[in-house]
Amino acid sequence: MEKREVVILGVGIHKFGRFTDKRPHDLGREAASMALKDAGVDVKDIEAGFCGHVYQPMGVGMEVFREAGLTGIPVTNVEVACLSSSRGVMLAADLIAGGVYDLCLVIGVEKMQGGLIGLQGGEKSYEELMGMMTFPSRYALRTRRHMYLYGTTVEQIAQVSVKAHKNACLNPYAHYQVKLTLEDVLKSRLICDPITLYMSAPNSDGASAVLVCSKEKAKQYTTRPVLFAAWAGGTDTYIQGGDELKQSPAPLLARKVYDAAGVGPGDIDVAQVHDAFSPAEIIYVEKLGFCPEGEGGPFIWEGNTEIGGKIPVNTDGGLEARGHPLGATGGAMIAEIVWQLRGQAGARQVSNAKVGLVHNAGYGGDNVMLLKV
Amino acid sequence: MEKREVVILGVGIHKFGRFTDKRPHDLGREAASMALKDAGVDVKDIEAGFCGHVYQPMGVGMEVFREAGLTGIPVTNVEVACLSSSRGVMLAADLIAGGVYDLCLVIGVEKMQGGLIGLQGGEKSYEELMGMMTFPSRYALRTRRHMYLYGTTVEQIAQVSVKAHKNACLNPYAHYQVKLTLEDVLKSRLICDPITLYMSAPNSDGASAVLVCSKEKAKQYTTRPVLFAAWAGGTDTYIQGGDELKQSPAPLLARKVYDAAGVGPGDIDVAQVHDAFSPAEIIYVEKLGFCPEGEGGPFIWEGNTEIGGKIPVNTDGGLEARGHPLGATGGAMIAEIVWQLRGQAGARQVSNAKVGLVHNAGYGGDNVMLLKV
Repeated sequence: MEKREVVILGVGIHKFGRFTDKRPHDLGREAASMALKDAGVDVKDIEAGFCGHVYQPMGVGMEVFREAGLTGIPVTNVEVACLSSSRGVMLAADLIAGGVYDLCLVIGVEKMQGGLIGLQGGEKSYEELMGMMTFPSRYALRTRRHMYLYGTTVEQIAQVSVKAHKNACLNPYAHYQVKLTLEDVLKSRLICDPITLYMSAPNSDGASAVLVCSKEKAKQYTTRPVLFAAWAGGTDTYIQGGDELKQSPAPLLARKVYDAAGVGPGDIDVAQVHDAFSPAEIIYVEKLGFCPEGEGGPFIWEGNTEIGGKIPVNTDGGLEARGHPLGATGGAMIAEIVWQLRGQAGARQVSNAKVGLVHNAGYGGDNVMLLKV
Repeated sequence: MEKREVVILGVGIHKFGRFTDKRPHDLGREAASMALKDAGVDVKDIEAGFCGHVYQPMGVGMEVFREAGLTGIPVTNVEVACLSSSRGVMLAADLIAGGVYDLCLVIGVEKMQGGLIGLQGGEKSYEELMGMMTFPSRYALRTRRHMYLYGTTVEQIAQVSVKAHKNACLNPYAHYQVKLTLEDVLKSRLICDPITLYMSAPNSDGASAVLVCSKEKAKQYTTRPVLFAAWAGGTDTYIQGGDELKQSPAPLLARKVYDAAGVGPGDIDVAQVHDAFSPAEIIYVEKLGFCPEGEGGPFIWEGNTEIGGKIPVNTDGGLEARGHPLGATGGAMIAEIVWQLRGQAGARQVSNAKVGLVHNAGYGGDNVMLLKV
């Protein structure tokens, strides 16, 4: 069947940080309101809603939409761990491409009370019983493997966080607007060797909102929409006891979206890469094809992912410094790429950005998306 | 755009009840395995997965699919309270109708540790502070209103539960296979006047699975698929302090699916109606058009919703007696209608059932679906 083209019509963010005096609804409503204003869309024109969240109360999506003034439409809460809201956007895009809807709003929202270090529930596997299945430990395993195979250094890993924090200082929505030196990162508290505190994404509260629209319908609102050119998602290929570095579906998904959009990794002008822990950026720039396998460490050390570098990555500070409210993260990644492609990224603007990539990953799989103007 | 026709290719259930020694994964895997066997489908042929659940750990859907032998595909957890898994089926159907996929598996799974009486989190509304926003109290409000407006009696309400338990005795997957008398129901512990314990759905563990397929692709597997003829979902139109009886989107959604399928309520041979509390069946048979507004009480009292009656409702025992593991309920409702339409419902078979309706409701909205053979 012929598919329709899909665009991102508007985006919004509630600043990431700690907001103990606000309900998740307050965060979500503010992000939604910003996206609606950005697009010039009346909330009543929205045909379906999705809410990406992990730990919020049952029905929070419906409540947020109700508080935003919209009842009657189908609202579906979507949970795929750290990639919840980008999966919401991809579902909306699929439904719009397939002719089911013309205009959907995806809200991502999370309040991270108490933080998150492990996976809950169920009978424990051997790895879990040994404490190996918390997120820091899984990432640490991958990192040690990468260091062993390719000679990646802790300084290269720390540099990811230094760059992230530098970029976040240019982003008013970021959780932490503070510069860190290599020494700050390396000497911060050890979480799981070799990962230190400042190599780890903070537990932020926050919200994001993305208006997804058919290209046809978008003509009513704008003459310069951002094309949601291609997208693909999938679970990892985890095998108990298998190589932690080889379970990611990112290479396959990246290939799918490159092929679908008729581009290659060399055509990407700006990217969001899932840096829940700093070594992840090194691992994923390889898996997305921005540099050869094993060369992520030197690639980042030499400044290729800086604003002004060969392929600027996480221009908004990334998960490391912008923050990581699980359900809101994917939408925020998309928002940053939209702003970059529109030339609205202010002091952190990448010059002449025409093609952007979003890679959002986590427990539950990966999503890879391409946006174009 | 022209939409493709969608069928239900296979269904499965893990018996509802209390299974303290099993993980949610064990329940989900068993239901999935039954659905795959029912359809003659290899798990590797599934293109996308959805998992309906409310209170299970993050990523449970991905883990269930992994344990069922399937990685790499996108798996999305869907939460819309009591209607989670039927929303998963509707999303799959939309995606298949729109040409995105041909074959999806929707698993609904829930372990109800500790039960559920209220809504969590967030700033409390006036109603919540007064204890009015637990589910028994919301249903009790609607019930008292119905009794006031239409003269509905507690005996009529209790009869819903008597019938449900009678039907459940014929369903090997039901949580409670025990007959109740009118007196049993009326004299059981008062939960929220006029709702008694035996007018309330139990907190069951359980799982359901539904294989959703394009009609075209289904030809590979069967010559007699069950057509998923029409579906519609939407949030309620709740207004704080408004009439609890008027907030349901069910009448509008029912009209939509009747129109889409070219039928009326009189054409429905068998129905699943969301009886989280017994009065709900009385309220919803009206809203779905099976009897005029206000006449639900006498309609049920006179036996019209019994097996062999004018429109058999909740032939499997309904939420009342089959049980109500939130995320699994919607899929189980669909499974019962599929078995009825295929003539596989054993001792509870409705003769010559050709058109079935599923109404799944809860905090987050309603889903109404029509199935045909």
